[in-house]
Amino acid sequence: MNGKTREKVVRVSAPATVGNMGSGFDVLGMAIDGPADVISAGFKGKPGVSIYNNTSCGLPVNPLRNAAAKGVMTLLGKVEAGVPGLKIVIEKKIPPGGGMGSSAASAVASVVAVNELLGKPFSREELLPFCLDGEEAASRSRHADNVAPCLFGGICLTDPSDPGRVISLPVPGFLHVCLVYPALKVKTSDARRILKKQVPLADAARQWSRVATLVAGLYAGNAEWIGQGVEDRLIEPQRSPLIKGFLQVKEAALSAGALNSSISGAGPSVFALCDNRQTAEKAGNAMQKAFEKQGVHSTVVVSLPNTTGARILESL
Amino acid sequence: MNGKTREKVVRVSAPATVGNMGSGFDVLGMAIDGPADVISAGFKGKPGVSIYNNTSCGLPVNPLRNAAAKGVMTLLGKVEAGVPGLKIVIEKKIPPGGGMGSSAASAVASVVAVNELLGKPFSREELLPFCLDGEEAASRSRHADNVAPCLFGGICLTDPSDPGRVISLPVPGFLHVCLVYPALKVKTSDARRILKKQVPLADAARQWSRVATLVAGLYAGNAEWIGQGVEDRLIEPQRSPLIKGFLQVKEAALSAGALNSSISGAGPSVFALCDNRQTAEKAGNAMQKAFEKQGVHSTVVVSLPNTTGARILESL
Repeated sequence: MNGKTREKVVRVSAPATVGNMGSGFDVLGMAIDGPADVISAGFKGKPGVSIYNNTSCGLPVNPLRNAAAKGVMTLLGKVEAGVPGLKIVIEKKIPPGGGMGSSAASAVASVVAVNELLGKPFSREELLPFCLDGEEAASRSRHADNVAPCLFGGICLTDPSDPGRVISLPVPGFLHVCLVYPALKVKTSDARRILKKQVPLADAARQWSRVATLVAGLYAGNAEWIGQGVEDRLIEPQRSPLIKGFLQVKEAALSAGALNSSISGAGPSVFALCDNRQTAEKAGNAMQKAFEKQGVHSTVVVSLPNTTGARILESL
Repeated sequence: MNGKTREKVVRVSAPATVGNMGSGFDVLGMAIDGPADVISAGFKGKPGVSIYNNTSCGLPVNPLRNAAAKGVMTLLGKVEAGVPGLKIVIEKKIPPGGGMGSSAASAVASVVAVNELLGKPFSREELLPFCLDGEEAASRSRHADNVAPCLFGGICLTDPSDPGRVISLPVPGFLHVCLVYPALKVKTSDARRILKKQVPLADAARQWSRVATLVAGLYAGNAEWIGQGVEDRLIEPQRSPLIKGFLQVKEAALSAGALNSSISGAGPSVFALCDNRQTAEKAGNAMQKAFEKQGVHSTVVVSLPNTTGARILESL
């Protein structure tokens, strides 16, 4: 490797994602054009992977617990020997613990950046397991519902028993997303612990009818089915008490004409789907006001689904 | 009403259906071009609904328990007064208790026949609640997973919490079905009672990933996804012990090249999906031989999905 290569730096942006999309707990996720983590990767003389956190929020420095490091380390383990040390700089834009796939974005951005830096030894599809390693290090759960849409873009159907299996679903052109992120703390681990381990079979059957309706709505471009399909009467009722004002915020979205609204990932972010931009902006405002009425400050993003996934910003 | 009208007779055929389609317990169903119930409806002088069973199998004579009578009675309650007595003759071709939607077919055929006899006061869509009444009388369960595909044809996605809501899914041209009906008795009520009322959340999430994969496969015409999507690790393991030789029969279908295989409805019938006729015939033979090895005689039907639903054979 010559001196020039060693100075190469790759910057990659990876989008926030709405995990679950209501009914599709642990199974569906959608990338949005909102906040995105940016990660720069470059070579450095010292062997090993060094992580630099270029943001105010605290992140684990132990590479085995850091989403951005762990995936890169397993990637390095699969390439030919002789990779020099790596320096990874994290510009964290997606708040951790917000329910917007923050750890998935760091995992994906770093893996994509390092793959680019090394001259693309792996295809985008082949990067998925490394990204899952990163996600697992941070969230202790090997689910692809955030990682897959973050990596590939769009809306992904994943399989919790085989996270390498991903189906990219169609994204109708009319679909707009509001994502409202309140200044509330909900730990993903709490949001997971609160869930009942057993669910009534009848409720489960209703839920798979909903998930199937959502998928049918995406293929058919049927807004009504998408709205009906998002409905989650299984997980949302258990998690919503952790989010102050959730019911009012959801009601505000529906009153503004959203197709439906639910918790993004494990929360506390709340999303709404709309069939046009105007309604999405109206819904976003209404949702923010509803949080405000509860004394909760929030940030709103109205966007189309992001259909490109992680993107190389610079490769110098 | 004149004498001529009173002599009118309508004969309707309603197809057998594969309820559940593996993963889609209580939610998915597919009509097949196999056995079909045939019901004739005509006027008679005496008021009320009289049922005549023109077959060897025993059926409830009490109209409130008879699938063919109950739906017709609620239909009559919704039309203008002055309907004379009705005579309904059942030619039962779909064995009751076989897992092929036998009660749904009788319910659908009789309602469609009487609607035609009365000069079509209701559209096909409007007949669904009456058909559900008939199904409920016989099976004590108001699910549309057999009734909807029987009435409308094709593959239907239904909602167990709102059985009036039906989505007709696309049927890829390559899709062939083997349905193998063994000479075994499994009571639907037993097959339902055996099911655990609570399921682990993780298993439920895997199941809704499967159902969604099946729906995606039908829209995308992707045979591999259809095969993966049928997989049911939740209900099938509980019910299959009721079906002697099930595992061998399923294995025979898979070895013959079927996309997948599972229990039709509550069983004991077993279905397999294939991506061409030749494989379907090979799978059907292999499944029958596998039952035979267990000392179980069986009947095999290889068909395309029936895409028309209940059909008027004669209207004289």
